[in-house]
Amino acid sequence: MAALTRTLIIASEDGNEYARLVRAARLPGLRLEVARGVRDLRARLPAAQILLADPARVAGALERGRALEWVQSTWAGVERLVEPCRRLRIPLTGVRGVFGPLISEYVMAYILAIERHLFETRADQARRAWRQRPYRSLAGLEIGVMGLGSIGRHVARTAAWFGMRVRGLSYSGRRVRGVERVYPRGRAAEFLRGLDYLVAALPMTAETESIFGARFFARLGRRAVFINVGRGGQVVEEELARALRRGRLRGAVLDVFRREPLPRASPLWSAPGLFLTPHNAAASFPRSVAPIFIENYRRFVAGKPLLHEVDLERGY
Amino acid sequence: MAALTRTLIIASEDGNEYARLVRAARLPGLRLEVARGVRDLRARLPAAQILLADPARVAGALERGRALEWVQSTWAGVERLVEPCRRLRIPLTGVRGVFGPLISEYVMAYILAIERHLFETRADQARRAWRQRPYRSLAGLEIGVMGLGSIGRHVARTAAWFGMRVRGLSYSGRRVRGVERVYPRGRAAEFLRGLDYLVAALPMTAETESIFGARFFARLGRRAVFINVGRGGQVVEEELARALRRGRLRGAVLDVFRREPLPRASPLWSAPGLFLTPHNAAASFPRSVAPIFIENYRRFVAGKPLLHEVDLERGY
Repeated sequence: MAALTRTLIIASEDGNEYARLVRAARLPGLRLEVARGVRDLRARLPAAQILLADPARVAGALERGRALEWVQSTWAGVERLVEPCRRLRIPLTGVRGVFGPLISEYVMAYILAIERHLFETRADQARRAWRQRPYRSLAGLEIGVMGLGSIGRHVARTAAWFGMRVRGLSYSGRRVRGVERVYPRGRAAEFLRGLDYLVAALPMTAETESIFGARFFARLGRRAVFINVGRGGQVVEEELARALRRGRLRGAVLDVFRREPLPRASPLWSAPGLFLTPHNAAASFPRSVAPIFIENYRRFVAGKPLLHEVDLERGY
Repeated sequence: MAALTRTLIIASEDGNEYARLVRAARLPGLRLEVARGVRDLRARLPAAQILLADPARVAGALERGRALEWVQSTWAGVERLVEPCRRLRIPLTGVRGVFGPLISEYVMAYILAIERHLFETRADQARRAWRQRPYRSLAGLEIGVMGLGSIGRHVARTAAWFGMRVRGLSYSGRRVRGVERVYPRGRAAEFLRGLDYLVAALPMTAETESIFGARFFARLGRRAVFINVGRGGQVVEEELARALRRGRLRGAVLDVFRREPLPRASPLWSAPGLFLTPHNAAASFPRSVAPIFIENYRRFVAGKPLLHEVDLERGY
């Protein structure tokens, strides 16, 4: 029996590096093409069985993938691929276990920078001022993690390493290792009370759209810093800017925005106590993601269940 | 038999808080006095049996403590008390296990700020620039820790949590949990090769005086950042400033200096890639240190060995 050959299209900012890494694995029966730009992608898609892609690059063209049998995302946030894959009735696989350490670095970088006054100390140095600013140890500070997927759990365990008191909020409220207490969704008010830091690491779904608004920030309270590493569409940005201006929150750290790049007119750029970063808290390093594709390809060919398959009904 | 009463003098910037915490422990047979300033200390010292003190506050007056039986330091760095206690032939106890977590926070704050470009990103935000700066994950970066006392070991384990590859250098070269490889002093050149970060957490002794000079920085190499949380007298400051100006080191983070406050004329303030902090990487929080004094007092009264006793010959 002649071996079947499948066509893989790679559509990623890091297309060449993915091609190099996948080629190096010498996967049997795989023909590999790198799509250059949207038109090239649209031309190639109808003949492809497999797609390895940055979601934002392919979301608009996916309907043309009539022969597609499987899509592997290079990112954690797959919401733009869920609907097309559902319509095409093909599996969509994500990336898990890779972004947790990177998001933990990001979260701890900002918590430590805030608590240890790094920006103020840098300004002191610039004017040759020797000024000891009082600070708190992280040990004993209260941190809440919303969303206890692989990213949220890694952040929780990292915070616990520094002696922070960690609580979690999840759909189920099920216990999670490294989290002192997990609250179910219905008890959000209790979960939010008395937090020093709130880290939101939620997938984008109909239920999480715009959940961080004025009412949420009022519950969170003025000693808390709000950190969002989930999705920009979850935040009502004007209401966050207003809460910060009125001193109703201690601060905020945002990596994701409703529109990216963030428009120059956004009130977020200059909101007091707000630190913003250009959606790069967790870079998708091909050397971390390619092994997931390679393992999944082997499973796909063998007819075994794929790793990190997205529940297309639930949306993550 | 009438219980013996001993006089404790507290000489600390946080004298009142120490007095409150020690009083709350209701230690038997203890009369407590708080010294206000140097003259008051000198007047009270001759009648005291026990001293709980910030080293810098009492070093010059300690000779007057003719009745002293024991000195408890509130800080990790005790070098200024070693000689007087040796002459008085009384035990000196330090603080261990308290500063490790604080120094780890400090070290990770700066490593993360450097790797994640926090200062540059803050400047981008100020001019409303959306700019994604490439970065590395901490996982796989090479960090070396010089001095594997309780502080160095905590830093090593924290770096390991972030996936950094950790090596150590110590007097003995003995294996330490959480450190991939420990080099003995004689193999410093090999220890230094290829490091991304070097954290120095050494006590001040005759042997560590001025050990960080031009030759050391040349060995460390241009991809490395030098972080000193030990003592300022260990660094030849002009040579460090020169190595940075000439691009022979990637950067430096200094919390301690030969003269403190650092003189305004020091070349360190404006050395490229240098981050300096005013000797507060690990604040001595009375609520952390007081329990050590309280436990040691109970041991002292019972004639048991004291915790964290300094070897007065070795100097730490």
